[in-house]
Amino acid sequence: MFIPNLLASECNFMLQKSILYEGKTKIAYLTDDPEKILLEFKDDITAFDGKKHEIIPGKGRTNALISAKLFELLEKSNLNTHYLNFVEPNAMLVRKLDMIRLEVTCRNIATGSLVKRLPFKEKQVLNNPIIECYYKSDEYHDPLINDDHIKALKIANEFETEQMRETILKANSILQKFLLERKIILADFKLEFGRDSKGQIFIGDEISPDSCRLWDKTTLKSLDKDVFRRGELNVKEIYQEIFRRIVGA
Amino acid sequence: MFIPNLLASECNFMLQKSILYEGKTKIAYLTDDPEKILLEFKDDITAFDGKKHEIIPGKGRTNALISAKLFELLEKSNLNTHYLNFVEPNAMLVRKLDMIRLEVTCRNIATGSLVKRLPFKEKQVLNNPIIECYYKSDEYHDPLINDDHIKALKIANEFETEQMRETILKANSILQKFLLERKIILADFKLEFGRDSKGQIFIGDEISPDSCRLWDKTTLKSLDKDVFRRGELNVKEIYQEIFRRIVGA
Repeated sequence: MFIPNLLASECNFMLQKSILYEGKTKIAYLTDDPEKILLEFKDDITAFDGKKHEIIPGKGRTNALISAKLFELLEKSNLNTHYLNFVEPNAMLVRKLDMIRLEVTCRNIATGSLVKRLPFKEKQVLNNPIIECYYKSDEYHDPLINDDHIKALKIANEFETEQMRETILKANSILQKFLLERKIILADFKLEFGRDSKGQIFIGDEISPDSCRLWDKTTLKSLDKDVFRRGELNVKEIYQEIFRRIVGA
Repeated sequence: MFIPNLLASECNFMLQKSILYEGKTKIAYLTDDPEKILLEFKDDITAFDGKKHEIIPGKGRTNALISAKLFELLEKSNLNTHYLNFVEPNAMLVRKLDMIRLEVTCRNIATGSLVKRLPFKEKQVLNNPIIECYYKSDEYHDPLINDDHIKALKIANEFETEQMRETILKANSILQKFLLERKIILADFKLEFGRDSKGQIFIGDEISPDSCRLWDKTTLKSLDKDVFRRGELNVKEIYQEIFRRIVGA
């Protein structure tokens, strides 16, 4: 299991826990470095716009460790991510980003909203990945938008939109290969992006069973949040299983 | 008013009225030329997925003449359209196309579904036109789709999608200029495209107050189907007014 040794200086920010914002499953704390924040993963699990909500003890740590592992993997392949290091027991030290209000998704297999919205067959393998951008907005219920909308709403400029597209496609190849070696199919996943103080784009947020559809290679059974969405009872065990496969025992 | 003289030979097909298909507001008839069909405009007006429906006597002829006029305008500017000639009293002779299942829309001003779906202000002038593609499907209720969906569903290839985008942008400029000279603002409009027997792409369907949002330049009042959607009583008069401005008295 990957647990980096923290320098005392890196731990200083832990003392001044000033909350920058709190979301459904994570809390962002300011640190004494204005360019860095601490992202703490909560044990909460939510679905359907927050209507379904539970606490899974240990999930915060599990997701933080999975996310750290996958960010390290992308960093090694020279993708720019906000990740700096894991912080015991359930947090990541990350670059502070001005988040872009998009959920950028990449689909390798048709499932979920795609098969409800369009004539794709459930579990249909897509010849090429499908990239979709959703506008992050509780008021508008995260609608699908296209590149013209992104430009007109000044969410991102054309160069940034293209950069996010290229980045998620590269991340997809890297993650697919890594996961397949662990007998996991990456059906789809979403990334969020943000700009640092110089305007450079980084992958932000998390990469975890909350943000990816991860299927067992043989049985095609879900090893991700879909288990919770469907109301199955073994959510904790499934998160432990995917943790074991990705991070190790 | 534009009414071309028809040659007797061109009228022959009128005798063999074999219906190719019938839609809510138009009927397509086969002709004795397998490359051509006759598109007859009905007096029906419909909205909200066909749930609202009325007959406006004379609307078929009005829309056929407006459509013919606007197709001629685009043809003069070297855009490929299915239009061949107007046929009295309410039809157009057009190239037979294999229709692409898309409604390609171009928006200059935010209104309608755009302001419901996304944080645009009603009547907000857009800095650049927004192009949107909707998948034509009663079953799926014409959802917005992006270029990756179009490719994955084999609705059109990348080259065709780009060609449709460029064509509607050119058509937009031509139509905007023409209409503004007649004190009409083109808020938005949709085009449909199809392939001829050689696979070449042409603009098909119609360009009329049923498929365009046309606003009086001074009052910004609707001169199009929105009058009907809103349940106003002067639909016939509005269609006559827009006919007068576009085709002439």
